[in-house]
Amino acid sequence: MSKTFEKLQPYLDKAMAFETARNLFEWDEQTTAPFEAADYTSKVVGIISDEYRKCLINDDVRKLINKLKEEKEQNELSSNERAIIKELDKTYKELESIPPEEYRAFNELTSVSNRAWAKAKKDNNYEYFAPYLKKIIEYKKKFASYRAKKGQEPYEVLLGDFEECFNIKDLDLFFDKIKKELVTLLKQVSKKSDTIDKSYNYLKYDLEKQRDFCRYLAGYIGFDFNRGVIAESAHPFTLQLHNHDVRITNSFIEDNLESAIFSVIHETGHALYEMNIDDAVTQTLVGTGASMGMHESQSRLFENIIGRSEAFWTPIYDKLVDAYPENLKNISLKHFIRGINKAEPSLIRTEADELSYSLHIIIRYEIEKMIFSGEADVDKLPDLWNKKYEEYLGITPSNDSEGILQDTHWSYGEFGYFPSYAIGSAVAAQIYAKMKDLMPVDQYLLDGNITPIREYLRDAIHKYGATKNTNQILKEVTGEELKADYYVNYLKDKYEKLYNL
Amino acid sequence: MSKTFEKLQPYLDKAMAFETARNLFEWDEQTTAPFEAADYTSKVVGIISDEYRKCLINDDVRKLINKLKEEKEQNELSSNERAIIKELDKTYKELESIPPEEYRAFNELTSVSNRAWAKAKKDNNYEYFAPYLKKIIEYKKKFASYRAKKGQEPYEVLLGDFEECFNIKDLDLFFDKIKKELVTLLKQVSKKSDTIDKSYNYLKYDLEKQRDFCRYLAGYIGFDFNRGVIAESAHPFTLQLHNHDVRITNSFIEDNLESAIFSVIHETGHALYEMNIDDAVTQTLVGTGASMGMHESQSRLFENIIGRSEAFWTPIYDKLVDAYPENLKNISLKHFIRGINKAEPSLIRTEADELSYSLHIIIRYEIEKMIFSGEADVDKLPDLWNKKYEEYLGITPSNDSEGILQDTHWSYGEFGYFPSYAIGSAVAAQIYAKMKDLMPVDQYLLDGNITPIREYLRDAIHKYGATKNTNQILKEVTGEELKADYYVNYLKDKYEKLYNL
Repeated sequence: MSKTFEKLQPYLDKAMAFETARNLFEWDEQTTAPFEAADYTSKVVGIISDEYRKCLINDDVRKLINKLKEEKEQNELSSNERAIIKELDKTYKELESIPPEEYRAFNELTSVSNRAWAKAKKDNNYEYFAPYLKKIIEYKKKFASYRAKKGQEPYEVLLGDFEECFNIKDLDLFFDKIKKELVTLLKQVSKKSDTIDKSYNYLKYDLEKQRDFCRYLAGYIGFDFNRGVIAESAHPFTLQLHNHDVRITNSFIEDNLESAIFSVIHETGHALYEMNIDDAVTQTLVGTGASMGMHESQSRLFENIIGRSEAFWTPIYDKLVDAYPENLKNISLKHFIRGINKAEPSLIRTEADELSYSLHIIIRYEIEKMIFSGEADVDKLPDLWNKKYEEYLGITPSNDSEGILQDTHWSYGEFGYFPSYAIGSAVAAQIYAKMKDLMPVDQYLLDGNITPIREYLRDAIHKYGATKNTNQILKEVTGEELKADYYVNYLKDKYEKLYNL
Repeated sequence: MSKTFEKLQPYLDKAMAFETARNLFEWDEQTTAPFEAADYTSKVVGIISDEYRKCLINDDVRKLINKLKEEKEQNELSSNERAIIKELDKTYKELESIPPEEYRAFNELTSVSNRAWAKAKKDNNYEYFAPYLKKIIEYKKKFASYRAKKGQEPYEVLLGDFEECFNIKDLDLFFDKIKKELVTLLKQVSKKSDTIDKSYNYLKYDLEKQRDFCRYLAGYIGFDFNRGVIAESAHPFTLQLHNHDVRITNSFIEDNLESAIFSVIHETGHALYEMNIDDAVTQTLVGTGASMGMHESQSRLFENIIGRSEAFWTPIYDKLVDAYPENLKNISLKHFIRGINKAEPSLIRTEADELSYSLHIIIRYEIEKMIFSGEADVDKLPDLWNKKYEEYLGITPSNDSEGILQDTHWSYGEFGYFPSYAIGSAVAAQIYAKMKDLMPVDQYLLDGNITPIREYLRDAIHKYGATKNTNQILKEVTGEELKADYYVNYLKDKYEKLYNL
């Protein structure tokens, strides 16, 4: 190890410890903490967050980073160390660029504005939320301007926080391609909506049996219960303390069989990524997925491409029928597969099917761009939103709660996040196309043998954590950087067959 | 607030945050964390513990403490602030007195020695554990000597870490009194052991119904589920993040009805204490119980004095019978009350009844004293242990696993802790005697009305946290400092009636 890097190590270790503690508080809040704990506990989390910032943002660390970035030092660094320095430098610049008092004021604002959003959504009252949203946008513009390169759009800075590989031009091309193909495809599919029956999905399904089956599914796919736990929370999520402690949650609905099943497959996809990260990389700044998009690619590969395939369900569908014979004994495997892939335009992103999902994202991407370029006025967002839903999905929200107010992201200041979901779907399709060339994926699934798939993903992607970025990984694994074509072709192929188009 | 205290506040806040994080990691390890997480997570906890130490033990804090201890500053301090300074000064002296490298070596030793103890207990092999125990004792002697006042025994220093009010002379008198009375009483009771039938307790009791009933019991006594949670762990315990987040665990045994019931009452007693601590005191150095013994007094007051009384069970026993009609329909309330109070000598402290419990403690107290005075050689402890069990309880362990190896405390270096359990029982009896003078305790219990009891304890004891010590509280509440008489009289009265002695 380089002597300079050795000097940096204690700062990195401390930051890792504080970050892990913050994650544990987050987990605990979502799964365990009692209702009235929040105000007192947030004081603790605030102090730990301050300490995180202080132990990374100081002159000693700045000097060490600069020294390590010099050519001579770089040669003495391992590739992991270089990746850590790159990430640290990025984090440093981001945190340093914002004056501490503005940073604190912004954090106070988002904590208030998130509550305001929840109230506005509940009361279907966009006007109540709008003033908060305006302030948040002002802050985000200002914060982005502190870091923008010459001529760079503020929105591009925000996009870069989640995905460094794609600028606005890349994403415009990416989304145009998707939009062009999928808007038409979805319209064709909508017309044939009646050809697929899914009524079985909305019968009563005993919750305890759902829990058992979902736990079985997680283990079947490869969730390692010695290195992870499953709990329950209002919305399913994945969170890790390190590669030996990866946690997912699920949420169960009695009259919706699919909901928890595809949530647990999705979160297990995230969890496998984190469990497979190398021991040498975990507990460092690059000890997590390469990007939001790359992470989402793994959850979506398992949830949609694998988890909604007939080959995946062939060896295990009987087990599900055995759990609910009264509901499913007359539902054949083929019927079930058509049911879980049924697509039709809907208003709520989180409940959208695989085909229409990206259109929800495109709408958000286009609106976020307009917000930050000044083309869209905050007061007019509900109209803009509704028009785009009509244009791309052919339906219009009947109120703002199921329209502009549906997502929590903006109330926390998370702009630039949404595109990662669509990038994830496209990355998944591109990797899947490659996997099919390399191995008999369907045969493995038919045999109930997920191991070779999981090991391939581990060795090709997961183990590296964030030591490589999305396009580096894609280039190495598939020979190309991100291309929308695989995703579009996968969806066209699948839905044309499913609906006999 | 004094200006000097204001300068100290950020250090106290940081220490509080790190301590709360440590507590959450502890909770998580016992209730949630996956099996293989420990090695990686312990790195995080180690760093946070170091930061805790560093933010309290430094020249700035030392100077501020000294300034605040000066007469002039003291007058400007509130009573809470004075209590915080006193506690900080004590913590400072304790942490400062041990050289960091010795402190680290000792922590490494206890982590290894705890595993060695677990193996030795499993294999019934005291010789395997003895060398570790010797080293631990050497460290504890040395650490105690760093802080001992002139002529003070090392063991007295250790006792003071758990309970500042009682020195060896006090405890000798206290335990002599108890021993004299209870050894005889227990012998009389043992002879009439056959007069109480308890076979119903060891039938099969559905675990889900046990969970439900124990949750009901916690709420019945006053556990506030908006400010607390109940989980499961191998051994029941209570842990708090602050007064709005108090957590207890329970552990269920299918063929032992009592085990979980009295555990949950015990832990709820601890939890009420923590939930009732004033908002002004929580999240400070004195934001917990006054001492180990005072804490244990509240758990034992509820578990034994209240929780094993006929008045307590009169309004709720039917509910228990309804949960298990097949097992309990022929067990009358009177039969049940005799069963839950049955006493007989046994070998394992944690399973001991209320009458014999303190004799287990006396044995440990006497042996710890001999260890630290040099009278007892580590290699001869098993013999010493067995002889004392024969003398006080009339029974001899058949092996070391159920003898000298049964408790985990020494393997962590916790010497001086055991007496707190007996102090707790005695404090509970003394407070209970006073309560009976002040209010119709039995009538409240018969009415199922725990509120006046709980509110009395809150206002007389709980709300102050550790701003007062055990004897201060006892003096204010009962007019006297700790006296063994109330405890001895309570037990004599109870058991003479129960066994018609």
